[in-house]
Amino acid sequence: MPTPPLANRLHHIEPFRVMALLARAKALEAAGRDVIHMEIGEPDFPTPPAIVEAGIRALQAGHTSYTPALGIPLLRQAIADFYADHYGVAIPAAQVAVTPGASGALQLALSALLSPGDEVILSNPTYPCNRHFIQMFEGVPIMVDVGPAENYQLTAAKVAAHWSARTKAVMVASPANPTGTLIAPDELDRIGQLCQERGAVLIVDEIYQGLVYDGPDRSVLSSHAGALVINSFSKYFQMTGWRLGWMVAPEYMMPAIEKLAMNAFLSPSAPSQYAALAAFEPDTLRLVESRRQALRARRDYLTHALLALGFDIPAPPQGAFYVYADARRHTRHAEQFAADLLEAHYVAVTPGIDFGGPGADQALRFAYTTSLPRLQEAIQRIKTFIDS
Amino acid sequence: MPTPPLANRLHHIEPFRVMALLARAKALEAAGRDVIHMEIGEPDFPTPPAIVEAGIRALQAGHTSYTPALGIPLLRQAIADFYADHYGVAIPAAQVAVTPGASGALQLALSALLSPGDEVILSNPTYPCNRHFIQMFEGVPIMVDVGPAENYQLTAAKVAAHWSARTKAVMVASPANPTGTLIAPDELDRIGQLCQERGAVLIVDEIYQGLVYDGPDRSVLSSHAGALVINSFSKYFQMTGWRLGWMVAPEYMMPAIEKLAMNAFLSPSAPSQYAALAAFEPDTLRLVESRRQALRARRDYLTHALLALGFDIPAPPQGAFYVYADARRHTRHAEQFAADLLEAHYVAVTPGIDFGGPGADQALRFAYTTSLPRLQEAIQRIKTFIDS
Repeated sequence: MPTPPLANRLHHIEPFRVMALLARAKALEAAGRDVIHMEIGEPDFPTPPAIVEAGIRALQAGHTSYTPALGIPLLRQAIADFYADHYGVAIPAAQVAVTPGASGALQLALSALLSPGDEVILSNPTYPCNRHFIQMFEGVPIMVDVGPAENYQLTAAKVAAHWSARTKAVMVASPANPTGTLIAPDELDRIGQLCQERGAVLIVDEIYQGLVYDGPDRSVLSSHAGALVINSFSKYFQMTGWRLGWMVAPEYMMPAIEKLAMNAFLSPSAPSQYAALAAFEPDTLRLVESRRQALRARRDYLTHALLALGFDIPAPPQGAFYVYADARRHTRHAEQFAADLLEAHYVAVTPGIDFGGPGADQALRFAYTTSLPRLQEAIQRIKTFIDS
Repeated sequence: MPTPPLANRLHHIEPFRVMALLARAKALEAAGRDVIHMEIGEPDFPTPPAIVEAGIRALQAGHTSYTPALGIPLLRQAIADFYADHYGVAIPAAQVAVTPGASGALQLALSALLSPGDEVILSNPTYPCNRHFIQMFEGVPIMVDVGPAENYQLTAAKVAAHWSARTKAVMVASPANPTGTLIAPDELDRIGQLCQERGAVLIVDEIYQGLVYDGPDRSVLSSHAGALVINSFSKYFQMTGWRLGWMVAPEYMMPAIEKLAMNAFLSPSAPSQYAALAAFEPDTLRLVESRRQALRARRDYLTHALLALGFDIPAPPQGAFYVYADARRHTRHAEQFAADLLEAHYVAVTPGIDFGGPGADQALRFAYTTSLPRLQEAIQRIKTFIDS
């Protein structure tokens, strides 16, 4: 009785390498070691108190039933209002879908668009789930190498050079993971124009929206109303574990999105949705703004400290909470470097190989999701490691 | 600039017909009408207080971060213990995956198993999401008509008759939606045997486990350790809006399940997981048992009342919270009957067409998810409607 073979798509979907490293970090911690976590894409800030309190009130009030598949109308409207108030963009609430995390939004968007063999153009490096979701629905990711010359972002010229008759979508992330870079507005406009002319969908991952330290904090929707935007309450609003995100999609896609959402998820978490209503209150917005400033201070410190240690940072990070550094002065094999650093000095960082792209073997992603004193301690340990 | 065409899979995925009816029911309510809801697969019982309180404590304690992709170890162990305590089955916690609802479990199971063209045998009628998930991952649902002669369940003979070289899995639901029937243990054993001999996976939807009024409340795992079980905190534990389910999968599938879960969901909701720990406490179990007895009383009443009104119930419901009735004495078009009943007397029921199968056009699903007095009122209204 042989076990039935698993799906072919599993050959294309790799586990995150950092997971093995994270497991080792936890084992070291369990053994009493003081591990500094710079590998995790989750800020150390707790969910803002007003959101937690709204969640508690929701539970006390019995908001524990299914909601409409695309979310409660109040929250869809609040998200639409947020675009109007903060980005000056008019979005009908009917084009907002609340989802189980940005993961849920990405899944709905790609399952609504991709037939087997359809191609999606995206940058390399990229957040690996983007590629994997495409493969989950039998689409073909067209990975376009990008580097410091393009600020690690797609360009219209590169998109055009990789276009084919099967191109169904182009995916951009700004601010990007792992590099923290922003795409230039005029470049994004040209890519949007190309998509519009040739009949493809521009998908923009804006899940780090708001976490911008240099350059404009904007939404693609301010210039391309037809773009499909993926967003999340996880990062800017620090609601990771609540699993809540959203999507803004072109009007013609909404019936398909709703049909898929009702089948795939039934509804997003009810308590999380009621809690998220407090995300847009003035007190919460003031708090997340102060945290943004704290993150900027960390970025400034970490960038300078890594440069001083001989790491190269070919494109300065402008947003999110990552520094993507070239470690070639110290190693030819960054994954081994990360493993050794963890074993010797209990500092956990993510190897570039998880994100792909040119030079990934020699790259490391440092997340500044821990406090400034801890980052300073980490830098001391890395210095000791390098000097040893 | 034509809009890009949507994915082919959307042609195979239908929206639930009941959704239009539900929208109309809500519009009538908004206009002040007293609608009796018998269309919704969600009990009227609130989440048990101990679970709500555990959720509140989790939020107060700051359990709002990502968890491991397959769930917190405490909850995986608690689920494993539940199988040992209540069903006498030893399940390693390592084979339990906590998921965003049973929907998330089904998605992981099918994306792990199905390559394009792979076939899954399932009964017709069935819960429509089962078929849709198969199509979402480019598998082929092989719908096998079942009726009263088989208690609306698959038989080993029918499964064998529909077997092909592409058969990858057989999917059974017990108790079933929409019929509330149980599969006979010996029939399930024969199907499991067939799967084992021929190298396919037996997937059993046990999301109504515990909600059994006649016949044995059991898990397929007691006789087929290699089966893949889908389960949920939604129905028996009344946690619908929390979006939390689980899966028990064969050991060899777990690395694939974990890899897919980390990509598709990152993790299930953290507060929901901590809340669910209270589901297995003695107080909660006593409460859900008393609710099960209330549901049985509703089933007994509704079954007799519908029979008295001239509906036919070819296979008496043994579990879940649905009565699947043949309405041919009253209509040749049950969807129109449901629409007219709602307009005239504000009683909402689900047309059989949402579930497929022989006679679906003349079938209705009555959910006893509302109180006995409301069911009595509904029966009065239906009587008036039929007599008019």
